[in-house]
Amino acid sequence: MAGDVDKIRQSIRRGEWTKPTTGIDSGNTQANLVILPKKYAYDFLLFCVRNPKSCPLLEVTDQGVPVPVKTAPNADLRTDIPKYRIYKNSELFDEVRDITSYWSDDFVSFVIGCSFTFEKPLLDNGIPIRHIDEGCNVPMYRTNIPCEAAGELSGPMVVSMRPMKAKDAIRSVQVTSRFPSVHGAPVHIGDPAAIGIKDVNKPDFGDNVTIYDDEIPVFWACGVTPQSVAMHSNIDMMITHAPGHMLLTDLKEEEHAVL
Amino acid sequence: MAGDVDKIRQSIRRGEWTKPTTGIDSGNTQANLVILPKKYAYDFLLFCVRNPKSCPLLEVTDQGVPVPVKTAPNADLRTDIPKYRIYKNSELFDEVRDITSYWSDDFVSFVIGCSFTFEKPLLDNGIPIRHIDEGCNVPMYRTNIPCEAAGELSGPMVVSMRPMKAKDAIRSVQVTSRFPSVHGAPVHIGDPAAIGIKDVNKPDFGDNVTIYDDEIPVFWACGVTPQSVAMHSNIDMMITHAPGHMLLTDLKEEEHAVL
Repeated sequence: MAGDVDKIRQSIRRGEWTKPTTGIDSGNTQANLVILPKKYAYDFLLFCVRNPKSCPLLEVTDQGVPVPVKTAPNADLRTDIPKYRIYKNSELFDEVRDITSYWSDDFVSFVIGCSFTFEKPLLDNGIPIRHIDEGCNVPMYRTNIPCEAAGELSGPMVVSMRPMKAKDAIRSVQVTSRFPSVHGAPVHIGDPAAIGIKDVNKPDFGDNVTIYDDEIPVFWACGVTPQSVAMHSNIDMMITHAPGHMLLTDLKEEEHAVL
Repeated sequence: MAGDVDKIRQSIRRGEWTKPTTGIDSGNTQANLVILPKKYAYDFLLFCVRNPKSCPLLEVTDQGVPVPVKTAPNADLRTDIPKYRIYKNSELFDEVRDITSYWSDDFVSFVIGCSFTFEKPLLDNGIPIRHIDEGCNVPMYRTNIPCEAAGELSGPMVVSMRPMKAKDAIRSVQVTSRFPSVHGAPVHIGDPAAIGIKDVNKPDFGDNVTIYDDEIPVFWACGVTPQSVAMHSNIDMMITHAPGHMLLTDLKEEEHAVL
């Protein structure tokens, strides 16, 4: 399995794998990435601690170190993600496949758990994942749920959505509660408008998926939330993964189940 | 219940309650306290994130604010703990009942979950707690388990110990796994020497308790760990609670169970 992950990361590094990383059936934890100049590191670390549903920290690198030594010691954070986003002065500035030219020894990297991790346990429980079935990225939405601010950093929570039958929604609460470090239990079930989503068929990030009449949308806090912070706060520079294009870690998902 | 907690805190503030806070049957979360000058706050926050078993963060105050607005909005961190410890230049410098004279607007306070919180659920499960039965403080030990360092901060893990029958030890793993934010599942069961404890009858902090022949000692990571960091690292100032003399918060323990 770890071999598989190494192979996929190498293929990402060579620029061959450029698509989202959903549906990789290796049992490995996937992760969001946030890279910031050191001057923002304390406030962002505090933001993560204050908003653990959106930003469950798997690892924080030492300043200037581009290798996540604990979660993926063979990976290079500058090249091993299929697509990166560069935010400058509160706006999306660029989308690139390699951030080597942007890298600075001043950077601190935050590796944050991703809900793709618990899709395999959901599938193992017989719960279909629509965006995997439809071969696209998970739909993600900016909500009206405010995160708890930390210093200058604030912004609304971003959520991912998976539609499913009511009985599967109940089971999904049980299954995902085992994995708080990859967002854990859902934050909302049902009416999208109740959390400020105007049109569930128009996600702010990722792709639209079919919701059948007998299904209920289930919403999980999402590690794209820092990107909403980048656009909402006065930050001159933040580098992230592009939504759905994650870091593959060496951690097996079962290793950080709480039960 | 919250009323009870308010009353106990007021009695602590007036200097009437000076003993350990174990055995308070209110269902409220108890907490360890660490206060540091801002210059150490990033490293200590990172230390907590890297050592979540020992240092599960319930709240981090903004700089200079002596009120834990989220966990105990009516409390004052300078007066509402029965006994404080002042560490200076890696040594225990003083033990006091009020830190008003030490307070500085430069301080950041870290409120860390305490295992006293899950003693009520253990009791509810029919598991006796020896130090409560013997009317003393829980025994705590410095181990040979190294914490993961963060910047200049490092030191060995401190653990608390509760002796119990084997069947209760198994049940205690289940019960405490529900509460990762107050240390969660045990870190060790059985032979004290395996984690560097030379004499289980001579705890480094708290009181000695009876261990019967048919019992096994069960060890949980402990929020006194930062005090081992204070003595192990080059820190000119850290203020903490005295071991076993905790902050009573308004959070009900059930509120932060993961299941």
